[in-house]
Amino acid sequence: MMPDIHAGPPSAGPIELRRVGIDRIRKPIHVRRPRRDVVLTAEFSVEVDLPASRKGSDLSRNAEILAALTDQTATRPVGSLEEACSWIARELLARHASASESLVRASAEYFVQEGIAPGRESYEDYLLIAEARAERGPEGRLRLTRGIGAEAVGMTACPCAMESCRELLMRDHPELASGPWREIPMVTHNQRNRTRLLFEVPEGVEVEADEILAAIGSAQSAPTYSILKRGDEARVVLEAHRRPRFVEDVIRELLADVPRRFASLPDAVVVRAATVSEESIHKYDVRASHWTTMAELRRAIASS
Amino acid sequence: MMPDIHAGPPSAGPIELRRVGIDRIRKPIHVRRPRRDVVLTAEFSVEVDLPASRKGSDLSRNAEILAALTDQTATRPVGSLEEACSWIARELLARHASASESLVRASAEYFVQEGIAPGRESYEDYLLIAEARAERGPEGRLRLTRGIGAEAVGMTACPCAMESCRELLMRDHPELASGPWREIPMVTHNQRNRTRLLFEVPEGVEVEADEILAAIGSAQSAPTYSILKRGDEARVVLEAHRRPRFVEDVIRELLADVPRRFASLPDAVVVRAATVSEESIHKYDVRASHWTTMAELRRAIASS
Amino acid sequence: MMPDIHAGPPSAGPIELRRVGIDRIRKPIHVRRPRRDVVLTAEFSVEVDLPASRKGSDLSRNAEILAALTDQTATRPVGSLEEACSWIARELLARHASASESLVRASAEYFVQEGIAPGRESYEDYLLIAEARAERGPEGRLRLTRGIGAEAVGMTACPCAMESCRELLMRDHPELASGPWREIPMVTHNQRNRTRLLFEVPEGVEVEADEILAAIGSAQSAPTYSILKRGDEARVVLEAHRRPRFVEDVIRELLADVPRRFASLPDAVVVRAATVSEESIHKYDVRASHWTTMAELRRAIASS
Amino acid sequence: MMPDIHAGPPSAGPIELRRVGIDRIRKPIHVRRPRRDVVLTAEFSVEVDLPASRKGSDLSRNAEILAALTDQTATRPVGSLEEACSWIARELLARHASASESLVRASAEYFVQEGIAPGRESYEDYLLIAEARAERGPEGRLRLTRGIGAEAVGMTACPCAMESCRELLMRDHPELASGPWREIPMVTHNQRNRTRLLFEVPEGVEVEADEILAAIGSAQSAPTYSILKRGDEARVVLEAHRRPRFVEDVIRELLADVPRRFASLPDAVVVRAATVSEESIHKYDVRASHWTTMAELRRAIASS
Repeated sequence: MMPDIHAGPPSAGPIELRRVGIDRIRKPIHVRRPRRDVVLTAEFSVEVDLPASRKGSDLSRNAEILAALTDQTATRPVGSLEEACSWIARELLARHASASESLVRASAEYFVQEGIAPGRESYEDYLLIAEARAERGPEGRLRLTRGIGAEAVGMTACPCAMESCRELLMRDHPELASGPWREIPMVTHNQRNRTRLLFEVPEGVEVEADEILAAIGSAQSAPTYSILKRGDEARVVLEAHRRPRFVEDVIRELLADVPRRFASLPDAVVVRAATVSEESIHKYDVRASHWTTMAELRRAIASS
Repeated sequence: MMPDIHAGPPSAGPIELRRVGIDRIRKPIHVRRPRRDVVLTAEFSVEVDLPASRKGSDLSRNAEILAALTDQTATRPVGSLEEACSWIARELLARHASASESLVRASAEYFVQEGIAPGRESYEDYLLIAEARAERGPEGRLRLTRGIGAEAVGMTACPCAMESCRELLMRDHPELASGPWREIPMVTHNQRNRTRLLFEVPEGVEVEADEILAAIGSAQSAPTYSILKRGDEARVVLEAHRRPRFVEDVIRELLADVPRRFASLPDAVVVRAATVSEESIHKYDVRASHWTTMAELRRAIASS
Repeated sequence: MMPDIHAGPPSAGPIELRRVGIDRIRKPIHVRRPRRDVVLTAEFSVEVDLPASRKGSDLSRNAEILAALTDQTATRPVGSLEEACSWIARELLARHASASESLVRASAEYFVQEGIAPGRESYEDYLLIAEARAERGPEGRLRLTRGIGAEAVGMTACPCAMESCRELLMRDHPELASGPWREIPMVTHNQRNRTRLLFEVPEGVEVEADEILAAIGSAQSAPTYSILKRGDEARVVLEAHRRPRFVEDVIRELLADVPRRFASLPDAVVVRAATVSEESIHKYDVRASHWTTMAELRRAIASS
Repeated sequence: MMPDIHAGPPSAGPIELRRVGIDRIRKPIHVRRPRRDVVLTAEFSVEVDLPASRKGSDLSRNAEILAALTDQTATRPVGSLEEACSWIARELLARHASASESLVRASAEYFVQEGIAPGRESYEDYLLIAEARAERGPEGRLRLTRGIGAEAVGMTACPCAMESCRELLMRDHPELASGPWREIPMVTHNQRNRTRLLFEVPEGVEVEADEILAAIGSAQSAPTYSILKRGDEARVVLEAHRRPRFVEDVIRELLADVPRRFASLPDAVVVRAATVSEESIHKYDVRASHWTTMAELRRAIASS
């Protein structure tokens, strides 16, 4: 019989720990999507808290629980990455009797077949993000919160440099001030943009990842594609320049769209958004982020 | 005159944003250390909030403020990385009239000359972490909070596998149960461990980064060094095996040491700690983290 | 009709380029494995050379060819990642009429269900590596070379520190010099090790990736697993300490095993091996690498 | 006396190894630059070969030699990163009696004070790259080759999408075909570009890193800066759009410039160049690379 030194008291003193767990563990997981099943390669962190009375957290259980869930999806696919996290978060509290909270996070590349035109479809890669937090409430009832999110890479074109370039060129070309010129997009810097949207929802509330990706694509200056012929490139470039956006614009367009696009979400749902533009005219990045609730977003939109 | 499209209203609607700024911008910065000046290569993020009424945040100011501070340290070194962050955080609110909060984060590699024995000193690399958050309070007074932290790589040896190995070997070697055997360290898995400690302090309260690094080194099973001759390697290995520690132990030893080692810190100071062991017997990592206050830590220690 | 500025002459002068292409493009790819089909998430680089007479390489073709191959595997899985690379390499030369050489590289996480004991199986993650190079030879015949490789994370225990620890302990415990002590593994530093083996083979010669992974596992001090109960941990630790190995040992054991394990490979096959130990007693890594041919390896082994 | 198990024969058999060493070891190093001394944070790999007769390579020597050189630069700065590598490469062969070749590689961030206009200077970050390879020749004479290189981030604007956009817009605006329009830059996609140039030179031949950086900046569509006011942004954007370049163009402009800019380099010097554009209209990168000699470059340029 192997000794159980985890169960003893901590030698350093009775200090509780908020999170103890395993991290950067990767597993294949079969997920049922609207029109097909997909196999995702997901990276997980799987953690629980640890009371002040106990030396160790017996982390082999975390690995076992994660493996039990992900491995069985090979024959019975799970509904979503967040459903997987929820199951694991519950099971963690069932198996770690001394823990009062569990937190599971996952992210996975997600490929969607799409294209700028028929015949040019291919798999574009996105990122799915999921979380589940389970807390032991009064009378042993569990309270579960889930995070459902996604991230997409697209393009932004800067509205400020566009106006500055027009201004500069008008010094030599006064005709730029009027006429057809105003309809023709002006040069500016454009770049890769990475935008993320995540909802924290209570049990029973669902959000569709594909809809999150659609919302992000609408908020960027233009989505990007892996297959673009010459005319397609021109269309993407023109679309981006006709919709120039700061990171501030990207995140606000995204947030302004949320109450319309995800109309059924309860007021208490937390909304988190972040965007990064890998600026072509700088060696560093520009970013914006916000976190709020559906209620606050609805108020802000209504006030406009 | 270039057009100022930042100052206009946001087209997406009156949505405030918590953070807008520049990220992953790298600068050399001269810092005055206890016994010498050092040049750090620091990576910064520099952000402010943006009110619902304004389209853009004029981020060129962030880059200018950062450059103004870091460049002038070439002739007038700053006292610490957190002092640099504080100066930038204040200046951000001075120059972004519409912002009510600023947040500056920095991290920088930090080399300390040390060794396991005289004649074996060299530069060991650590990480400094600093933050400053400035908030506009009533009557325009600024409230400033600073984060002062550091991270060190060391070694952990697992106490559980050590006992399990002893148990397994005793089946064939019952003499292991007693006598000199008990004094001889038993094999276990050991690995690279990365541990971080950070204090959130009000203005006027200082913490010395070298003391944070010393605290971390004492909490790991053993510190590690770049120059080790054969006998030195044996000493490090034996030290680690005589002080086997889970990630749970590392973080508790570290936290238990804080009230003694940083005795003058006020009760309200927030303490954050995190540790990761890159397990040699797994392909994934094991980690633990905690955040608390000096007051709570003092209570926990007193209760033991 | 869109202008074709790629076909014009380069303005900088008639300088040929060895490689022009797309990089870090990720695609799902369905691969037929011995006992099952798997979906890999692969990252590709897809390149051709460019003659001195031509301005641009029309890289949209590279993306189209890659998509055509990977997308069709959803209904018709490809035999292996290297077979996919070979098809792409050929097609590149067919579609880039002015190119004389193409090079395709791919890597993909690969999960294998295994465990230290029945009931403890789960998916362990490895890396598959594949390459294909096609060259236009005389009379338009193509010469194709493929690279087939894999990488595994395992554990190494240092044989030198083990002897140094024994030596140091013997000063206080002379009894360690003899008797049962010699059978009991001595402490040392152990760590994560990452080892890679790749064969460059002509057309028609196959190597099984699972066999490459088995060879690597035998060369490390011990393989590692995601699920380990207490007794299992002890077994892995003891196995590693009974087979202590430098990086030099890992790579030589691996290479010495190659002529036996891959006996049918022709003499001209190139063998490449590399190993990295993320040392627990240092903050930096230790590594070893070698490249040779089957013929040379056979000679070296025969001479021993 | 600690046992020396490195000196014994390898148990796996008499297999020589091309490279054994330490990797990802970081050190501060003081370097004398034309107008000032700088402290670089450099990352090194330090390797030697290992004959078939010897089990281990005694890697503690590599760490000692590296530390001896880098630490003493605190009081006596070295002339350049490649000079540091050369000293280490020589010393490796002096201390590893059984080795016949040594290879040292280093890279370090390098900050240069510059700006788009007076009053807007700040530190821009670049990368220095250095190598040294020492081989034991007949009669014990050493042959030393050094690599001297640098990498810069700038901007590229695509010439193809520019013409495609013009073409597409001309369908609705035929006036774009003539007149002042031709002088006004057309929209296209632009992005971050990372370009590297490295020379392999014999002893006694020097190349100035600042000159390499100047060459790279001239080859990209435009250099980028950390401080840009509105008018500056417009100038950078217009410069890039007036000099649209594929990756193919960037690398050829760079190579075409080499014989002029580095006119004194001998014919046998090897020239390596690589460039990556992080495409704004794709999620993946586009790249080009070439390696050649000064002699071949001179021939190519002369033929044009």
